[in-house]
Amino acid sequence: MVETRNPLNIGASARAMANFGFTRLRVVKPYDVAFREARSAVGAAPLLRSAEDFPSVADAVADCSLVVGTTSVGHRELQHPIRRLEYGGRLILRRLAADPAAPVGLLFGSEKFGLSNDDLSHCHWLMRIPTVDASLSMNLGQAVALCLYELARDPKAAGMRPEKIRAAGAAENEQITLKLIEALRQSGYINPVTAGSTEEKVRRLVRRLDIAQRDVPLLLGMLRQILWKLH
Amino acid sequence: MVETRNPLNIGASARAMANFGFTRLRVVKPYDVAFREARSAVGAAPLLRSAEDFPSVADAVADCSLVVGTTSVGHRELQHPIRRLEYGGRLILRRLAADPAAPVGLLFGSEKFGLSNDDLSHCHWLMRIPTVDASLSMNLGQAVALCLYELARDPKAAGMRPEKIRAAGAAENEQITLKLIEALRQSGYINPVTAGSTEEKVRRLVRRLDIAQRDVPLLLGMLRQILWKLH
Repeated sequence: MVETRNPLNIGASARAMANFGFTRLRVVKPYDVAFREARSAVGAAPLLRSAEDFPSVADAVADCSLVVGTTSVGHRELQHPIRRLEYGGRLILRRLAADPAAPVGLLFGSEKFGLSNDDLSHCHWLMRIPTVDASLSMNLGQAVALCLYELARDPKAAGMRPEKIRAAGAAENEQITLKLIEALRQSGYINPVTAGSTEEKVRRLVRRLDIAQRDVPLLLGMLRQILWKLH
Repeated sequence: MVETRNPLNIGASARAMANFGFTRLRVVKPYDVAFREARSAVGAAPLLRSAEDFPSVADAVADCSLVVGTTSVGHRELQHPIRRLEYGGRLILRRLAADPAAPVGLLFGSEKFGLSNDDLSHCHWLMRIPTVDASLSMNLGQAVALCLYELARDPKAAGMRPEKIRAAGAAENEQITLKLIEALRQSGYINPVTAGSTEEKVRRLVRRLDIAQRDVPLLLGMLRQILWKLH
């Protein structure tokens, strides 16, 4: 984090790092008061207390084999490739998989000015968060959280199968159907002339509800109580 | 947002909504001062000014055909299916694609307590952000940003092809090679006895650098200047 001004943003970034399992926070020329405040805040993450303070971007990224800058696009002539977060994230993960020992640095500029041209000259390429309107910058703490989430998210999880919730069996559905029909008959809902077709409708309705097996006792209990009161 | 306490979180959430193109912010029993402060903040998003205030979750979600709660798992017995954000996001998008006119509500609880059991009873299912440690809750403004990003991100963008950066042609690489060899010769780097093998090494090095066509004039300019000084 380069020249961060607001201590809340440093704190929020440290929290997001802890949330997604990142451990090394480096700050470059932070607004001193901000950094001290964030660090001494009640409940400050251990990660924040162990944050390293550097006098320049060059020092902060010295051991990194890949340095990726973050930017909200559009407002200046950038000579670097700018990649959407979804794609940039894949590239970073691929790099880390190929050589886990080579650190990758992710640079975030100040709240007001972002990364300077000098900061950018230390980057191999840039990444942008795909907001709908590039002129609307993101909150710094949120931007950090989004970049880390993109690296931590599991693409396979998106294609997951639904949890297996066991559906009620035919006998259970019929039990519920019969109790419901009984309650409807007792309450005068069912017209004796059309009773047959109404009962069919009720039976179909119960199947459409796709009742979970674990809800069967609850429903039967309700119907029994209603029937008891109706009698 | 249900019973939000901190005005910064309401403001940050409104900003994230604007960033990702979401327009309808609803608050339920916000801490009044927080809501008024957030609303009247300098530069408050139009979205925040048009936020609707509801007395209950039931009122807030009345027109929604799907209500999804957010939770940090583990700390209570939950009767709903809990889905990871990556998967839950797909389900929400699929629903919106099938019926764009049916609003989907995303519920966020208070900073301290999350959603209450009563709030949760209005939800069809729950979504959790896949943090490494479920006991570490997320910052509310960041959690909102992550959920909206997951809905806005483009999975296809992750598989993008690298930008086409035109590589220098063979003639250009050879031009650079010859200038570099010349500079090395002039500076005494090349031993006349091993000149042949050194020149080959230089030629191979230049190809390995995979120079972009647009960088050719810059490199040639540098080499020409060095040669001029060496002569």
